[in-house]
Amino acid sequence: MRKLITLVLFTICGVASGQIERVEPPNWWVGMQQTELEVLVYGDNISDLVPEFSGNITIKKVVKTENPNYLFVTVDTYGISPGIQTLSLKKGRRTIDSFDYEFKARRENSEQRKGFDSSDVIYLIMPDRFANGNASNDSTPETIEKANRDHQGGRHGGDIQGIIDHLDYIHELGATTLWSTPLTLDNEKVYSYHGYASSDLYLIDPRYGSNEDFAKLSSELHKRNMKHIMDFVPNHWGISHWLIQDLPSKDWIHYWEGGENGFKRSNYIQTTQFDPNASKIDAKGCMDGWFDYTMPDMNESNPMVINYLVQNAIWWIESGDLDGIRVDTYPYNDKQGITEWVTRVMEEYPNFNIMGETFMHDTAHIAYWQKDSKVGAIQGFNSNLPTVMDFPLHDILLQVFHEDEQNWSDGFYRVYDHLTKDFLYPNINNLLIKMGNHDVNRINQEFEGDLDKYKLALTLLLTLRGIPQIYYGDEIGMLGDKSKGDGDIRRDFPGGWPGDEHNAFTNDGRTVAQNKYYDFTKKLLNWRKGQPAVHFGKTLHFSPVKNIYVYFRYLPNDPDETVMVVLNNSDKDQKINLERFSEGMQGFNKGWEIISGAEYELHQTLEISAKSGLIFELR
Amino acid sequence: MRKLITLVLFTICGVASGQIERVEPPNWWVGMQQTELEVLVYGDNISDLVPEFSGNITIKKVVKTENPNYLFVTVDTYGISPGIQTLSLKKGRRTIDSFDYEFKARRENSEQRKGFDSSDVIYLIMPDRFANGNASNDSTPETIEKANRDHQGGRHGGDIQGIIDHLDYIHELGATTLWSTPLTLDNEKVYSYHGYASSDLYLIDPRYGSNEDFAKLSSELHKRNMKHIMDFVPNHWGISHWLIQDLPSKDWIHYWEGGENGFKRSNYIQTTQFDPNASKIDAKGCMDGWFDYTMPDMNESNPMVINYLVQNAIWWIESGDLDGIRVDTYPYNDKQGITEWVTRVMEEYPNFNIMGETFMHDTAHIAYWQKDSKVGAIQGFNSNLPTVMDFPLHDILLQVFHEDEQNWSDGFYRVYDHLTKDFLYPNINNLLIKMGNHDVNRINQEFEGDLDKYKLALTLLLTLRGIPQIYYGDEIGMLGDKSKGDGDIRRDFPGGWPGDEHNAFTNDGRTVAQNKYYDFTKKLLNWRKGQPAVHFGKTLHFSPVKNIYVYFRYLPNDPDETVMVVLNNSDKDQKINLERFSEGMQGFNKGWEIISGAEYELHQTLEISAKSGLIFELR
Repeated sequence: MRKLITLVLFTICGVASGQIERVEPPNWWVGMQQTELEVLVYGDNISDLVPEFSGNITIKKVVKTENPNYLFVTVDTYGISPGIQTLSLKKGRRTIDSFDYEFKARRENSEQRKGFDSSDVIYLIMPDRFANGNASNDSTPETIEKANRDHQGGRHGGDIQGIIDHLDYIHELGATTLWSTPLTLDNEKVYSYHGYASSDLYLIDPRYGSNEDFAKLSSELHKRNMKHIMDFVPNHWGISHWLIQDLPSKDWIHYWEGGENGFKRSNYIQTTQFDPNASKIDAKGCMDGWFDYTMPDMNESNPMVINYLVQNAIWWIESGDLDGIRVDTYPYNDKQGITEWVTRVMEEYPNFNIMGETFMHDTAHIAYWQKDSKVGAIQGFNSNLPTVMDFPLHDILLQVFHEDEQNWSDGFYRVYDHLTKDFLYPNINNLLIKMGNHDVNRINQEFEGDLDKYKLALTLLLTLRGIPQIYYGDEIGMLGDKSKGDGDIRRDFPGGWPGDEHNAFTNDGRTVAQNKYYDFTKKLLNWRKGQPAVHFGKTLHFSPVKNIYVYFRYLPNDPDETVMVVLNNSDKDQKINLERFSEGMQGFNKGWEIISGAEYELHQTLEISAKSGLIFELR
Repeated sequence: MRKLITLVLFTICGVASGQIERVEPPNWWVGMQQTELEVLVYGDNISDLVPEFSGNITIKKVVKTENPNYLFVTVDTYGISPGIQTLSLKKGRRTIDSFDYEFKARRENSEQRKGFDSSDVIYLIMPDRFANGNASNDSTPETIEKANRDHQGGRHGGDIQGIIDHLDYIHELGATTLWSTPLTLDNEKVYSYHGYASSDLYLIDPRYGSNEDFAKLSSELHKRNMKHIMDFVPNHWGISHWLIQDLPSKDWIHYWEGGENGFKRSNYIQTTQFDPNASKIDAKGCMDGWFDYTMPDMNESNPMVINYLVQNAIWWIESGDLDGIRVDTYPYNDKQGITEWVTRVMEEYPNFNIMGETFMHDTAHIAYWQKDSKVGAIQGFNSNLPTVMDFPLHDILLQVFHEDEQNWSDGFYRVYDHLTKDFLYPNINNLLIKMGNHDVNRINQEFEGDLDKYKLALTLLLTLRGIPQIYYGDEIGMLGDKSKGDGDIRRDFPGGWPGDEHNAFTNDGRTVAQNKYYDFTKKLLNWRKGQPAVHFGKTLHFSPVKNIYVYFRYLPNDPDETVMVVLNNSDKDQKINLERFSEGMQGFNKGWEIISGAEYELHQTLEISAKSGLIFELR
């Protein structure tokens, strides 16, 4: 601990005693549901000063911690008007320092903002690797790591302007929602590009742009009727975060005696959150262990930490005009703390959506974490988390297409069997489904560049229940092998940098092979936009026979919207008897096949080629 | 349907019209909780006759079916005294035929009989393959298939007397409960030895002995303080069953038009019982399909079928003095029907135990079927079935010992992770656990005869939560490969037949290798008998490190009963630091190791050999 404090004294030694160095949140809004606001004031030896707000704003509570550089000032914002007020720090009648604190008016209907849902398709990017729209900010004076595109794990220069420049590409592709991995400042010396070790939770990394650029990204998305999801990391901050370097009190992080800087690596055993047989040492080892040595584990059982995180999330929703949040490493967070966090954010925005990264491999384990889960209720737990992630489906998609001959429990039977557990989820639509992300082998690497497998997998992904997420570059067949380093699965999008040899953002710039991936993806994504049965309908599926899987998405009250999906995962052309599927076909005998655009007569039999899929709108 | 009826007319054509050929149940008991009794009376053209009971027994209802050979006579048994009454069939004032119907007195405390539980260890045998105690009944005139020990799938002559003759062996081994696969008549032409296609639900197969022998088996078990579990098959009867051959009405079985004798094979997709996406045709294909072509699927949505099965079960519990029932293919039964069945049997015997074969591979799927399951409750379902089977643990035991080096998700981590789902079960003690049965490869085949692996697996099995079941012959290292035919996993127990070269029932008859298996098994089983913490205690486990798994079984209110298990699944001798386990050790620092009988100092470290286990009673 001593070392951390020493570092900080050094950091702020140039500032005069009593001067305000930071105020967080740096502003707020009027008319919030939760009217209490805790303002963190930071400065050298300020704790003996008396805070005062102008404008008759009532200070309800002032909390001092063991560190004299902090004051936590709780004010009641009920009924106050928009405008700038002065926050003064006083010694007797003398004002030592002051800060212009703005209470802004909210955007119209801000509280009713509608989150992403299963009518959306999410496009996930890593901003450093997508597109470099502003070469001048690739390195900045105030950030440590400089751009080095030759280094797989270095900063490559991608930025918010690069994303904005290519929103039309994403929009035309048919994705409706953008999720970028974290954009706040990550000022680590190395591997800062991934952004998961934030040095400032209120500041966009200048190498990506400004806070204003971040808000502009939302407005550009909204112009296109698209949504914006922010990646949020409450479990751990970066070791270089200014607050970590000068902790308000020891109990803001989990400090492990004996470890360097308090570090002890998490055992990553998330199941200890509910395992009735788990030992305390294992549970603590997961929840209080650090995700990595640059990522101190926040003590979320400390209400001040949770309050900080709640306000930070609300601040970004308001200032960044967000449509959703993705929460990193959800089951590593303190269970009660993160539940309070998500509950309070959702209370402020009842129509919002938040998805937790539930990187687990058992459906019951994942269902446990969804709001109103009956599985969680076994232990009296309700996470209040609207959306969880269907990682087991991802696991299955890595296996199933390599199994041409269906045996008892493999091939498409895996997908079918997986869906039999859907009843464990209280809300099957609020389930992120995917076939890749920034942490695993790229799907086309898994498929060894086999386009047919990609088409089958994408067809599943875009027609099954849940919220599909695709990973940037999958739509042009990009490869990436995690065993070669994380950088290999996070390669630069071709054409995102000035001077790139090929520009895969354009039809002409893509190779013939890339266009095959792109065209198929674009067709399916754009078709899906208009399919309410796919978005919110029920599923009716038939046990796969000879590796052919047939299912229907349908609206019980609107049969005209029925979609029939027929997938042949075998390496043989087959003819199937349609009679078996009459429950799903509901008397329809024609189908418009949306990939080929052909109309099919769906009488007795249907022919389907090896390793291919058909999607019918029934007529 | 015509063919079935033709067969039966042939069968009973030698009997005069109006004569009683069968009465089921053939007797009953007084003082039952459920006082209504439905007596099935069968005979050629009897349905026009009027049934009458002597002794003022009230006939509440007479049901005639579409088949004139049946009368279902419901009587009220409330308040009647033990004794023989006459059931007469009358035409006007003339008695056409009569039957002496005995109402017996029940055994003392019959209704309070205590079922098997997790203090027991079950020994599973196939009676045809265990021991031949009576060579004179290997073939009998009234049964079709004759003994042929040379044929893997033939009848080998094992019988009830053979079991009784070797109860001392089982008792000394340390098992406390016997489960034999079905002993009722199976009069199929071939493969009748397995007994799962019953031709008479009220008659022990004469090649096994008599109904009296069956009751004697119970009394011999009870003399030794052991328990008796009967194998019960409500889902399907044998095609040769007399009632199937002359159905009371079509709706007693699921008859598939177009199939030979109404046969259509089940699709075996048990998940259709709860899958919200399942198609009706798949659900019907599982539940109404036949398990095999000799096993017509009973229509358990017919209340008469369920009532027949309830009475049959009660009849065996009373006449056979049972301590438990194992139900075959539980999730293939009609869900509501089998729930009524189990509910009524358990109402009659509130302390009894019934276990269902839940041959599935996902814990949530299995937990669904246990009484008071919160997983079942998601769909408003409560099975009322006290005990289910932990097949996933079995799946894991087949993998884990082949993984010397523990990677992230394999080795002992599989077992650890499996137990994290324990909270899905409402009653974790009522969970049958096993490493083999009559349907799968023998465990020592899976272990390729590696004794160390067997010892580790047995140690797990006998110290984890639940009711351990071992399969006859595993305790002497028997091999059996299902790919060579079911007979290979159901070989004769050596020494069970007069003239057998080796007699593995005796120390001298066993080989040195067999004695190593036997001695270890005997030691653990007998030790387990006196371990309340293993029977009913809680589990505290620690995430495996380097493939060493440490767990404790303990009684929260009686620390002196704590058992500590240390298992090394790696191929290296290791030394472990004990400090990590202090939560489980509760300050104890000595342990009596029950395998070696040595006392250990359990201070800082503990050495453990490669692929071995230690079981400590802490002191």
